[in-house]
Amino acid sequence: MINIAILGYGTVGSGVVEVLETNKDSINKKAGTEIHIKYILDLRDFPGSSIEGILTKDYNEILNDKEVDIVVEVMGGIHPAYEFSKKALEAGKNVVTSNKELVASHGPELLNLARKNSINYLFEASVGGGIPIIRPLNKSLTADEISEITGILNGTTNYILTKMTDEGSAFADVLKEAQDLGYAEKNPAADIEGHDACRKIAILSSLAYGKHVDFENIYTEGITKIRPADLAYAKELGYQIKLLATSKKIKDKAYALVAPMMIPNSHPLSNVHGVYNAIFVNGNVIGNIMFYGSGAGKLPTASAVVADIVDACIHVNKNIITNWYSKDMELLPLSEVPSQMFIVLEGHGHQDPIEDLFGKVTYIHSENETVFITGHSTEGVLANAFSELESKYKLNILSRIRIEKR
Amino acid sequence: MINIAILGYGTVGSGVVEVLETNKDSINKKAGTEIHIKYILDLRDFPGSSIEGILTKDYNEILNDKEVDIVVEVMGGIHPAYEFSKKALEAGKNVVTSNKELVASHGPELLNLARKNSINYLFEASVGGGIPIIRPLNKSLTADEISEITGILNGTTNYILTKMTDEGSAFADVLKEAQDLGYAEKNPAADIEGHDACRKIAILSSLAYGKHVDFENIYTEGITKIRPADLAYAKELGYQIKLLATSKKIKDKAYALVAPMMIPNSHPLSNVHGVYNAIFVNGNVIGNIMFYGSGAGKLPTASAVVADIVDACIHVNKNIITNWYSKDMELLPLSEVPSQMFIVLEGHGHQDPIEDLFGKVTYIHSENETVFITGHSTEGVLANAFSELESKYKLNILSRIRIEKR
Repeated sequence: MINIAILGYGTVGSGVVEVLETNKDSINKKAGTEIHIKYILDLRDFPGSSIEGILTKDYNEILNDKEVDIVVEVMGGIHPAYEFSKKALEAGKNVVTSNKELVASHGPELLNLARKNSINYLFEASVGGGIPIIRPLNKSLTADEISEITGILNGTTNYILTKMTDEGSAFADVLKEAQDLGYAEKNPAADIEGHDACRKIAILSSLAYGKHVDFENIYTEGITKIRPADLAYAKELGYQIKLLATSKKIKDKAYALVAPMMIPNSHPLSNVHGVYNAIFVNGNVIGNIMFYGSGAGKLPTASAVVADIVDACIHVNKNIITNWYSKDMELLPLSEVPSQMFIVLEGHGHQDPIEDLFGKVTYIHSENETVFITGHSTEGVLANAFSELESKYKLNILSRIRIEKR
Repeated sequence: MINIAILGYGTVGSGVVEVLETNKDSINKKAGTEIHIKYILDLRDFPGSSIEGILTKDYNEILNDKEVDIVVEVMGGIHPAYEFSKKALEAGKNVVTSNKELVASHGPELLNLARKNSINYLFEASVGGGIPIIRPLNKSLTADEISEITGILNGTTNYILTKMTDEGSAFADVLKEAQDLGYAEKNPAADIEGHDACRKIAILSSLAYGKHVDFENIYTEGITKIRPADLAYAKELGYQIKLLATSKKIKDKAYALVAPMMIPNSHPLSNVHGVYNAIFVNGNVIGNIMFYGSGAGKLPTASAVVADIVDACIHVNKNIITNWYSKDMELLPLSEVPSQMFIVLEGHGHQDPIEDLFGKVTYIHSENETVFITGHSTEGVLANAFSELESKYKLNILSRIRIEKR
């Protein structure tokens, strides 16, 4: 028997309890032992519930109990999740987490601690909800050097963009509807501004390159400025607009960014709609692969947490190698990142300034706006051109959306 | 250092050598040791090649060399691959294979032998080429009870169907073209008759259910009868025709079949085109997930083989649990399998016999044929109806294609 303690009885925590109960027999068989929930830590009371007898408000009770081998941190946020995780690992207890914020900010330190103590810090549920991606990167793509990871990593924004595309509705209306349905939070900034996706691509990039990619160095842009008209142009062009988190390696450097991008309908990610997530990976020998599934939700996320619990049971005193070390990955400055953009200017015409600043471009037909696609350039060159468009030519830029091809 | 021996220097074998050389440093780092190719077994000579010095024609040389810890069987076919693999496992050597025929027919026996000797029999490359699917089923979906696996598991047939769809060409013409391009073999039966996909779904089903699913019990139908007209009807209906290998669990029983099927454009598998493969999985807590990538090819397949070699290095004397045991999985008789079909009869009319045999159906407009979709029924009921259509009503059935929804 292996005793576990669950920190936090919110959506994911209660999902973990439910999954462990629902598939008890098959899970115990695969873990090679009986998994027993000895404690649930939560500051709230749950009078009359089935977990009442194992609730505690005192983390030290868990920490000091030598019978607890696995701590399941599903409370979210940095504090006190960081302190709790660190103390657990120092006490020789394996830690399983769904906490992308904590993994992105303190991953290398906690992983080192686990390595040192021959235990594990596992975080499959921190990216892509139920989609197996952390373990495949660690264990399945070991023959490859990863040159690209591009993902639809946030279900809320993908739901909003899918609805806007299907119905031609405005961003604000669809956001309101998503909030009413519980698909978006009351304070939706983390999702719609891209911060959530940014944490996740930082984690995936770190695993892919074996060095630490700091999320604070990743340029991040949300979807709040996407207009129904942009989605209509995209459709016309055979493209979809998706919030992509992408990371690519060029020789020894890498770059990463999060932004709404146009992808052609032939790209495997273009068919990922609604709240689904997907992660596209290119390796130098495997070529293109993609992982698709529910990126959030109580049970899919709990499924990933429980898979980590099973793995921790099998390797209770053996560190499973994780290819993510403290050394910082050198990132290309944003200005040097390759870029091609779809651009909309207010009003018709403007050929002269466009050709002056962007050279040869491809024009798209529009009734009342000036729409064009630039050639292949860099973020720096394009940023300069935008500022000239505004300052020198006094033009109003309605949209600038990156184009991602494969 | 860990010494390995490669059996067979064909496409996959030479790919393994190439991958181990190309990504040498990162692979050795992840394996935690230096991987050294000590022998390559092949009956042919390769005069002047870089591998000449390590070639052998005598398997006993490998078997008797105590320094060889991993045998990589990439020769294909049942004999002598079976005998070689068995002897290696009996001698305490880990075996890594890409041989779907051998895994489907002798998997449980070889896995038991590996378990008994605390070593491993690993076969990631046997299904889906480079796509990680065996390891995710064994290690990532451990929290779930799998209720469905449906895959596009054969690149040749997917290439042919994609070409037929895009160009409206006839099966025979596209097959000829695929043969000229090297995408289809001179003797294409294993692919176009569905036998290759059948072995693969047998392997996946066995892993999903934890019991042995015998490929000989799986109903298998190829794509040779698909007409350009059927693909045109499918397009009209918002469907794709794909060769699917599917396996579903109904309570304690399962059924599996391989056949061309119509899937709606909303199904994640519908966007898998050309030589790409994908595997869709439904678990009772994770919901729907899909794995997509190159299902064949020298380097993608070698990538999967090498990932298994790395895992075997890490677990050289520890059996990694594989959820596939000798006990046979009880399969539902074909006649009881749920079914819904798209049917084309020669000539117009035939309402009376159709309603007599199929009850309420949905008619599809056609210039010169009778086209309809049945209600939900079973394979047995539909097979009876087909035989009555032909014997009692003397009607000519031009097409019958199963419909798969999600």
